[in-house]
Formats: sequence, C-alpha cells, structure tokens
Amino acid sequence: MHYCSSCGHETQKKVPEGDHRLRDVCDHCQTIHYQNPRVVTGCLPVYKDKVLMCKRAIEPRKGFWTLPGGFMELGETIEEGAARETREEACAQVTIESLYMLFNVVHVGQLSAFFLAKMESPEFAPGEESEDVALFSEDEIPWDQLAFSTIGRTLRHYFEDRREGLFPMRLEYVTPPDQRA
Amino acid sequence: MHYCSSCGHETQKKVPEGDHRLRDVCDHCQTIHYQNPRVVTGCLPVYKDKVLMCKRAIEPRKGFWTLPGGFMELGETIEEGAARETREEACAQVTIESLYMLFNVVHVGQLSAFFLAKMESPEFAPGEESEDVALFSEDEIPWDQLAFSTIGRTLRHYFEDRREGLFPMRLEYVTPPDQRA
Repeated sequence: MHYCSSCGHETQKKVPEGDHRLRDVCDHCQTIHYQNPRVVTGCLPVYKDKVLMCKRAIEPRKGFWTLPGGFMELGETIEEGAARETREEACAQVTIESLYMLFNVVHVGQLSAFFLAKMESPEFAPGEESEDVALFSEDEIPWDQLAFSTIGRTLRHYFEDRREGLFPMRLEYVTPPDQRA
Repeated sequence: MHYCSSCGHETQKKVPEGDHRLRDVCDHCQTIHYQNPRVVTGCLPVYKDKVLMCKRAIEPRKGFWTLPGGFMELGETIEEGAARETREEACAQVTIESLYMLFNVVHVGQLSAFFLAKMESPEFAPGEESEDVALFSEDEIPWDQLAFSTIGRTLRHYFEDRREGLFPMRLEYVTPPDQRA
C-alpha cells in the first residue's frame, strides 16, 4: 500500500497507538488500513474448574466481560493467535487443546473461533485492553454482563459439555442484534 | 474505498471479468482491490463412493486437480461459501455435512477449510475456473497431479477415516514449499 484508499494521500508504515504491529497509516485523514484475514481467534482458558475472563477496557462493550480473543494476524496460525491474545489481554500462558467453537458472524464479516485451552498456573493480570481479569467457576460467571452473544454461547456449551466429558467442535451462526427476538 | 492504494488514482465499483461480485477496481493501473477475509473454504463432495474433483483452468496450478474451494466472501457463512464454490467450479449441488479439515497456510496468509459434503445426484460440469470435473474412486485419484498439498492431505485423511467410519475435524499446518523436505 502506497496511498490511502479513503483520501488518496500517501500512507506511512507505523505501529498505531495500542497496537503491536506495523500498519499502513494515513497521517492526513488518520485512517489505519488493516490488512489481515477477518478471523477472530480466542481461548476459553481453564484453570482447575474455573474459566479465565477479561473485563473489556476498550470499546465496543467496554466494561463487559469476555473471553480473551482478537483478530488473527498475518504470520501466525489461528491457535498461535488465540494464545497471543490470551497473553496480551490476560497476561496468561495457555496450552491450546482443541478448536471448540466456530461462529459465523456474517453481519460484521467475521469468522470467530474459540479454542479450549489449559492454564498450568493461576497467573494472570489485565493487559492493555482489559480493566480486570479473573477466574470464574460456573456459578460465578457474570451472565448478565457478557460482552458478546458468542461468549455466553461458548460458556454455556462448555459447562454443559463438561458434565458429559465430551467437547465436540461446533459451527454456529450469530444472528444480527437487530434481528434477535 | 475511493482511491487506489497502489497508484492513488480514483477507483470504480465494478464486477471484474470472471468474477461475480462488485470490487473496487483501478482503471489506471488495473489493480483489483479485494476486501474480504482471507479464509479459503471448500468441499470434499461425495457421491456414493466417489469424490468430485476439478481440473483447474486458471493459475496457480492450471491443469492440476483440486477440490472445489475459494475465498470466503463477505455476506456468507463459511459453509455457504464452500457450497457456492462447488456450484461455481463444478456446477454441483451439495449438502454440507461437517467441517473436516482446517489448514493454517501461514506463508500465504490463509486459513483453509474443507467441509465433508454430500451430492444427491451425479450432476456436475466444469465451471468457468475448471477445465474438467470428474468423480473419482479412491484408486482413481490423480495423486501425482494434485494442485495443492492440502488437497492430497484432505483426500488421504478421508479415505483412511472412511475405513474407520469416523471423520474427526483436524487442524493442521502447511509447511511453505521452500521448506519442505
């Protein structure tokens, strides 16, 4: 990329504030031109019988609880991306175990993946994009303060599947908010 | 998008030749600016004991055999994309059954998915991007004329799994060609 696709001025390679990678940035209109697959990849990090969650410090859904996740980047596998997001948002090290949920989030042009992941120790802390990070048992999950519908669906499946001891991969569809009952 | 990111001239919305969707196209330098997730989605279409394959009419790997697949588009689910590519490349109707293979193809910035799919009837024909389309039994597969390593790996898993009657989803990594033994 040499020119801004919004205003036509020349772009620069730089790391935007709060980001960790080089992007094509327009200094004239401030547009950041991301070039990556619109795959969202994240974890359901488990320590003993608890799940690690992050309280979002950024919009959208600032102040609501989520599972660590974000856009898959060029140069990494989808499971490396899930582990990286967990390090960045929750300062936690995880071992990726299996692909668990895959959501078609068509209305925002995203394919969103969650992996089951294991934490070897209860070490975590809020990353730049998190206000708080905490481990929750099933009866402690803040069900009415979840950031996205995908988070609640992933957690509900997890606790149900845990009772059966089987964690099949599921591919599901996310209805746009304005079409929900 | 209003300006070409390569040359800075104004772009036009049009459907490029051989494409079916509106793209931002630069009439000055001829660049087509695609805006979609870099997810590749395809099928392993099965009719009775045979698999439907396409002989590529376009580069890369023109003249080699592949499974129907291509880039996931905005506005569709990943399984709708797999079915669409099968219609476009093989003029075949499929019922998507399950996600079967997911490949990290990091060196080209792609996540490539193949779904098991069922054909209700042996109706197919070459689409615009195919020179030929044919059903192959296991001993008829053109193993030495496959377009991509993902195709051979998907087919080998399929025929092995078929003997067991179990088709687990697999997530695998594709080594770049210049690093292969």
